[in-house]
Formats: sequence, structure tokens, C-alpha cells
Amino acid sequence: MVILLQCSDRVGLVADIAAIMAAANLNIVSMKEYVHVDENRFYIRVEVSGETDLEQLQNQIKNRLPADTEISIRPYVKKKIAVLVTKEYHCLGDILLRNYFNTLGASVECVIGNYDILQSLTEKFDIPFHYITHEGKEKHVFEQEILQTLAQYKFDYIVLAKFMRILSPEFVQQYPSQIINIHHSFLPAFVGAHPYKQAHERGVKLIGATAHFVTNVLDEGPIIAQQTIPVNHAHSVRDMVKLGREIEKSVLAHALQLVLQDKVLVYHNKTIVFDN
Amino acid sequence: MVILLQCSDRVGLVADIAAIMAAANLNIVSMKEYVHVDENRFYIRVEVSGETDLEQLQNQIKNRLPADTEISIRPYVKKKIAVLVTKEYHCLGDILLRNYFNTLGASVECVIGNYDILQSLTEKFDIPFHYITHEGKEKHVFEQEILQTLAQYKFDYIVLAKFMRILSPEFVQQYPSQIINIHHSFLPAFVGAHPYKQAHERGVKLIGATAHFVTNVLDEGPIIAQQTIPVNHAHSVRDMVKLGREIEKSVLAHALQLVLQDKVLVYHNKTIVFDN
Amino acid sequence: MVILLQCSDRVGLVADIAAIMAAANLNIVSMKEYVHVDENRFYIRVEVSGETDLEQLQNQIKNRLPADTEISIRPYVKKKIAVLVTKEYHCLGDILLRNYFNTLGASVECVIGNYDILQSLTEKFDIPFHYITHEGKEKHVFEQEILQTLAQYKFDYIVLAKFMRILSPEFVQQYPSQIINIHHSFLPAFVGAHPYKQAHERGVKLIGATAHFVTNVLDEGPIIAQQTIPVNHAHSVRDMVKLGREIEKSVLAHALQLVLQDKVLVYHNKTIVFDN
Amino acid sequence: MVILLQCSDRVGLVADIAAIMAAANLNIVSMKEYVHVDENRFYIRVEVSGETDLEQLQNQIKNRLPADTEISIRPYVKKKIAVLVTKEYHCLGDILLRNYFNTLGASVECVIGNYDILQSLTEKFDIPFHYITHEGKEKHVFEQEILQTLAQYKFDYIVLAKFMRILSPEFVQQYPSQIINIHHSFLPAFVGAHPYKQAHERGVKLIGATAHFVTNVLDEGPIIAQQTIPVNHAHSVRDMVKLGREIEKSVLAHALQLVLQDKVLVYHNKTIVFDN
Repeated sequence: MVILLQCSDRVGLVADIAAIMAAANLNIVSMKEYVHVDENRFYIRVEVSGETDLEQLQNQIKNRLPADTEISIRPYVKKKIAVLVTKEYHCLGDILLRNYFNTLGASVECVIGNYDILQSLTEKFDIPFHYITHEGKEKHVFEQEILQTLAQYKFDYIVLAKFMRILSPEFVQQYPSQIINIHHSFLPAFVGAHPYKQAHERGVKLIGATAHFVTNVLDEGPIIAQQTIPVNHAHSVRDMVKLGREIEKSVLAHALQLVLQDKVLVYHNKTIVFDN
Repeated sequence: MVILLQCSDRVGLVADIAAIMAAANLNIVSMKEYVHVDENRFYIRVEVSGETDLEQLQNQIKNRLPADTEISIRPYVKKKIAVLVTKEYHCLGDILLRNYFNTLGASVECVIGNYDILQSLTEKFDIPFHYITHEGKEKHVFEQEILQTLAQYKFDYIVLAKFMRILSPEFVQQYPSQIINIHHSFLPAFVGAHPYKQAHERGVKLIGATAHFVTNVLDEGPIIAQQTIPVNHAHSVRDMVKLGREIEKSVLAHALQLVLQDKVLVYHNKTIVFDN
Repeated sequence: MVILLQCSDRVGLVADIAAIMAAANLNIVSMKEYVHVDENRFYIRVEVSGETDLEQLQNQIKNRLPADTEISIRPYVKKKIAVLVTKEYHCLGDILLRNYFNTLGASVECVIGNYDILQSLTEKFDIPFHYITHEGKEKHVFEQEILQTLAQYKFDYIVLAKFMRILSPEFVQQYPSQIINIHHSFLPAFVGAHPYKQAHERGVKLIGATAHFVTNVLDEGPIIAQQTIPVNHAHSVRDMVKLGREIEKSVLAHALQLVLQDKVLVYHNKTIVFDN
Repeated sequence: MVILLQCSDRVGLVADIAAIMAAANLNIVSMKEYVHVDENRFYIRVEVSGETDLEQLQNQIKNRLPADTEISIRPYVKKKIAVLVTKEYHCLGDILLRNYFNTLGASVECVIGNYDILQSLTEKFDIPFHYITHEGKEKHVFEQEILQTLAQYKFDYIVLAKFMRILSPEFVQQYPSQIINIHHSFLPAFVGAHPYKQAHERGVKLIGATAHFVTNVLDEGPIIAQQTIPVNHAHSVRDMVKLGREIEKSVLAHALQLVLQDKVLVYHNKTIVFDN
């Protein structure tokens, strides 16, 4: 069982938490904590073994720790995810393969696509695929259809595996810190249309990808993972797009692993990732 | 001798250039070319051995190659650089060490600082240091003093080794593709003051650095080299600044090596780097 | 069409090759060459467009270039591969996905496994799977069965996608520079059984993977691609094995791309990779 | 103050340590722990603020924790190092620069060289340099002279900054986990003379460096840090040696930073590095 906890910092928090666990007959397998000194904020991830009364444990934590404590208790139960896609296969294919061989750390409950291009791939792996086009519909209608489809499933996270429609704030706020997105990144950033074309014209020497939680501000939610790979003048725009897909696939896989192993806390617009 | 050449592309350019070299009794040691198909632009770096009449060679090239051909012939003569600094030692120190042990690929002719903090370091290595403060002066006066000091030296490139004043277009256009700058980079970019503070608050997982030629548009000239290194939530703003310096030092060293070995061509706002 | 050529070096080779192409009405799209000075060996990759008589071209090349010239002319025809596997899915899955979406740069003709574990995955993608167990057979019998199965297909390369049996010299020499293998690598190398366990006990901070052509000497053929990723004390042997798989998948994909795009030449125990 | 502690694992260790700190009026600023489950070994790094009686603290720790507990209490006092060199300047130069600008995290007390090549560099920075040749001496005499020179200084660590003589077990065991070495590394490893030449002939695509504590077995002590950088066929042996120096400099700097900030514990032939 993993316990993720954050609160304002004060002296003796680690000792208090350790004592609470001992009192609950829980054995601490691993403990990672971090104090953001400037913000006076304390974060901890505790992995424990043993059986205990969860309600009692939560009460104890609330009683002994600061009033602003946020606790999330995650039992060792396999998580569930829903995946939204558009046309590109690279992220979805990787997720489906890991799911099929039980190495994803979650089970894929369904895939929803605003095109039907990835339907046959998804169904090869016996995962339900729902084709919901956005065409000829107002956004709120399109999103309503997605929400209704999602309502048929239980899931812990929604993964945007190259889903190319921008979700409305109304949609996003129903799933706080539960929607994970992947997108390409550059140094410097290129805003506007055709970022790869801009990056190519500028002759960038690196391209990257960022996986993040989705918030109301497009592509600006808390970052979970980032990577870059080198490119050079000889890479055409098409080469760069292809390399961008490789790095997107790799970064999304890494981010999912971190989230699904309960290693990520969110505070404001930032993550604390207890990576090792 | 290295010949850097670019022109609009047409059939038979490589054969023509090879024939010109043979006719001039020059032996091709290495040849790297690249055609940017969309822009119909041809770039080549030819390394040759042998003695020849340079004027005659240039005439031959002009006669047989397209009218828009730009040629730069670089004999194997040790290049010279001038270095501009402010307060931070990390890039200058690295350059001075390499200069002292003859591994820079150039000789440092002088260092100019708008503070005197790095004077003692520079003079340890018997390099002239000119302290030219910007304080209490209009920018054009400050730059005029720098130009007058530079006029005492011969040099091929000006290296801004963490020089923290923005040079005016009037200054910059006197040295086209001759001024090399280094600055930190992030994914995404953070504009405005205190970029490291912004990056820290956003919880970025990578920080980087970019070395580029200086053009009129601040920090937006042709990119020579870029690198990133991973950071995490536990890095304070100060830690990130320190790591940023490491990566700046490393990227600037790499960029200088490329430029000083005549491996970099510039076209519009982009470099072609014949790296291997 | 790509022409890969190597021979002993002499003055004027590039000019000669360019002239041969021009005489054959072939337009040079791209040309990368490299001279290994110490070994006096010249390597070139020429990409040309246009139609020509291939036999005549080969004769011209033989007549004008050194006697030891080795030429390989590769028309733009989609290559074919056969894949050998054992139990692990990570490399095969990646190859099958790319194959299905036409981004592999080759078509997978068949998969042969010495276990049947990956049969259902392979058949999902309508690729023939041949289950040939090694159990209860002498090696030469096992290999004979593989050879007979391979004989039913046409293919350019055999990819060992985590095939865990060592192929005999008799098998290997039938496919010179045509068998590609992937295996984990460490700094330092750990020989003998359980390399990950040894690496963990030694506390290595990097693990890597190497893709190479297979020669008679186990795991010591010409290296095509290598990468490493950081690990730390907190990674268990199992974590390291999982990360090792990620890097193996990534390095094999990169190596296949290089080989299938005709960017790799082999000389003795070494590759020349014209990567950009 | 930093406390590094290791012992056999049992339930309640974190709670006990937290309680001991609270009883000693020490405030836990940061706590990182790791349990190696297979070896039943517990490691912790605790950073505390506040004043306390150190002897009493050590007694408390000994009384409440397992009998095999090893404690190292490191007050916030600037550490001291001695540096041993031969001919290459790259690691020493980097250390001297950081030392001069107070960013090394230690002070360099002296440099000992078995050649006098680096004397003038060292003395520029007003650090005593001792030239002790190994020539015409038996090893134990040479080492005796080094030991006598070292005896004039106080230091916490000896840094072998490209010191190319192998130290005897008699020398090494006087400084357990106190001697830090840097050397190049390859995938695969090349044993014997001229490793760069071997690596070049094999066409490796990565070269690396390893920083480690020195034990009796040459180059096989506990690894502190490792990195690799890409190379290709076009890098000559000399290019590879140059790149090897860059990576050695970078890895040694990183390792020193980790050790000097008391982030490294050693157990058997392995380090536990609390890096963030």
C-alpha cells in the first residue's frame, strides 16, 4: 500500500508519520520525503506492508498532522485507464502491447477515437474501441458523447495518447490530476501552427517531448516527464516528426509508469516525482 | 585547407567541385555535402591537401559554379578570438584552460569585462584583460569603448562567455556570423525575468543551453549547439542555476570546437553543421 | 537508388565516382564519404535519381575504380526481414507495430520462435509464425529446421529479436552481414551468467544495449548502434531488467532503421554508419 | 549537519531515528532512506539543523539501533582534498578553477605529481605542488615519499585526477573509501593496452567514464558516477581520446560533488547515492 501525503511543513512530521504507521501495525518498506523550503511544504511517499483499518488510519493522520494535510491511500490494486486517440498509432500501440503482456501497470478499459483509424489495432487486442467523431458537432456535444461513453467504464486515469482535440475546461475539471497528455517540445518553444516546420527552419539541434497532467491552460499543466534527442540540419521536417513520435512514445511510457506506481504528487502547477 | 561553399543546387555540382580541385592539384581529404531540397540549396565542406594559387582557385569556382555561390577558404592557420565577460567565471575559465594547454583550437587575444571580477583569473594566464564598465554611460558610448579596444587586436570571432549586456544592432552587424553567444534554454521557454525561478515553479524536468551566432534579434540567431540535462523537484532554484552553468560551459565548448574547425555554415537563420 | 561502395583510397576517387554517375545520367541526390586514413580505406554512400543500365554502371565502376572495390547497389525496393524470437515480446512487438503501420522500412515475412509464447501476438498481425523448439534436439538439427523454414521465404535480413540460442558458425556464415542481434551492455562488461545481478551488486550507474551484425564470435560482431540509460542503487535487479528491455527495444529499432535505409557499411569488424 | 547511517534492517528504524533526532533537539531538514531487501540492509541520510551533544547522540544511536550500525556524522565544515596527477590537465584544471571560485565544495590542500608538467598551472592558483617522480625507484619508496608529503596536510579525500600509477594495496588500505579515481569506460570493456585503439577498431558508438572509490582491485571499486557520450566511425583514436577527457572531467566533477555533499554511502563493493 502506498500513502501519498502533503501538508505545510513543521518540525517532527517524519517522526509523527513513522509513529502513526507503527501504531497502525504497518511496516514501512520505503519512505521518500521532500520539503520545499521556500513554500514551507512537506511531501512524502510511504510504502507500507501489513493490514490495518484504513478509516482509523486516516483519522489518526488527520488528528496528528497539520489541518491542510492531503492524503491519498493507494492499495495494491491494478489501476484502470481509458485512452483517447486521434490518428497516430505510436503511443496507443505501445500501451496496447504493454497491456497485453501485463507490463503496463494498469489495464486498458477502452479506447475512444475521434477517427476510426486505430479501431482495428485496438480490437486486435480485444479492447473496446468507441468511434466518436467531432465532425459536424459543437464541442460540448462531442465532449458529452465522450463523457457518456466513459461513464460505462471505471478508470483511474484518462490518457490522451495523441488525442488532437483540445478539451474544454468543463471536461477537464471533472478529472483533476487524472488526465495525462503527451506533446512535443522544443528549445526554444515554437508557438502557432507547424512547430516542426518552424523548428526545422530555425535549425534546432534538439527535439523533445513533455508528458503532463491536463489543466485548464492548454499544454501547461504539471510536468511529469520530459526527454530530448539530438537532431541536425540533415533531418527533414518529416524526419523530425518521426523522431518526435519516438520520443513522445518513450516519455509517455515513462510518465505512465511513474503515475501508475503512485510516485507522483501534484501541488499547484508542479509535480513532485519520487523516482527512486 | 577547408573550403566552405554554398549555392543554389543543380545537377553535377559535386562532380564540378571535384574536377576543380583536381585541376588545382588539390587532393580531397574529406568532403561532406548537404542539399536542402525544399530550399534548393547546396552546402559543402571540402578539406583538401596540397598547394595551389588561391586567387585562381576562387576564379575557377566562380566561373563554373552558380552565380550565387558563397565561398570561404580557410587555411590551416590558428584562429584568434576575443572574449567578452561579465561576472561568471565558468565559461571563461574553461576557455582559458584550453587556451593555456593549446587544446582550444584558437588563441585568446584578449578578454573584455564590464566588471573587473574576472581580471585576476585572466591575468594568471597572461591574457590582457580590459575592464570597461557600462555604468553611467549611454549604450553607444559603452560599445564604442569596446570597439576601440577590440580594434587593437586581430581576431576571427568574438565569444560572449556570459556577457550579460545586450549588444546593439549597430555593434552586431559589424561582425556577421562572428559573434558566438551562450545562454540557458528550457522546455518550454520561459520569457521575462528570472527564468530559472519560473522553471522551478513549473517543475521542469530538463534544463538546457544553446550556443548560437548573434544577430539583431536577441538570442534568436542561428543555433550551433544545444544540450539538456535532467533536473527534478528536489533541485532548488540555486541548484538549477549551478547545473545550468555546467551545461552552458559544455555547450559553448562544443560550439567553439565546431566553429573553430570550420564545420559550420550559416544560411538565413540556420546553421549547417558538418559534425562528422 | 543507393550505392554503397568501399575500396582502398587514392587521389581523385570522389571526382571519378561523380563523373561515372554523370556519364550514366544519374543525378547525385546525396553523397557521404569517409576515409579511414590509417587503413587507407575509402567508404562512400551515394544516393542517385534517374534511370540507368545497372550492369553497365557496375562495369564502369569496376573499370575506373581500384581493383579491391566492393559495390552494393540498392534499388528503392521495400526490403524483407525474417525475425527469430524466444520468449520476450518487447522487440518483436515494436517491430510488428511498425510493420503493420508501414513505418518499419521493411516487411516482416515470418517469425520463428523456439517457444510458442509469441505466436498469438504475431498472428494478430497476420504474420506467419513457425514454432521450432530446440528441446531434445542437437543444435545442427534445430538449425537445419530453421534453415528449411527460412528457405520458404525471401528476405534481406534476419533479425534476432531476443532470440536466446547461440547460432553456430555454420549457420552464421550463410548470412554474412545479414543477421542483426540486440543484447544488453554494461560498463564495465559483466561476463558469465546473470549479468544484471552482477551489475546490480557492483552498483553500476548506467545500463545499455548494443545492436550488431552477427559473426562467428558471440556478441562481438560489428556494432551498429548503442545507447545507455542511467540507473541507481534503488533499482532492483528486476527494475534493471525492465529498463534493459526498454533500451534494447529502442536500440534495435534505431539499428534496423539505419540498416534498412542502406546507411551502414561493414569492413572487418567495424561499421561505417552514414547517419545524417 | 549530515548523518550517514547503515545497519541491518528491521521494523521501526525510521521511527526510531526520527525519535532520536527529536530527543536530541535536532530538526530533520531532509531524510532519504533505502532498504536493500535482498541483503536486509538499511541505509539513511539525514540532514538536521540545531545544536546537540554529538557524543550523547552517537551513544543514543548505538543504544537504540542494531549492533552492526555504522554511523558517520558530518558537520557543515568545508572539506579538504589532496590531488594526485600525472600529465593530463583536464581534471586538475577543472578542480583548480572551482576551488579558486569557491564552488568545489572543498579546498584543495596540495597537488602531488609524478611529473612536473602541471606545476605551473597549480602554482598559478597558489596551491602547493609537490613533484615526486616514480622513476628509478621501487614502488614502495615512491609511495613512501607520497605518504610523507601527504602527512604534512590534513585532508578528507585523495582525488586521483588522472594519476597514472597503480597504487599498492598497502597504500590504498590506509584510506578506505577516501580515494576517488576517474577512468574511461567502454561498452564493451577493452582490457589490456590501448583501449581507445581497440574501441576504435571495434567501431564503438559510445565512450564513457567511471568515477569510483579505490580498493585493492584495480579500477573495480564502488562506482560513484558514470556517463557516456556518442561517437561514430569518423572519430579517430585521437578524437576519441579528446572526447574521453571531456567525459572524464564531467564525471569526476559530478562524483566529487556527490561525495563532498555527503550523499554517498559505501557497502561492500557498491555505493548508495542519495542524489536528490
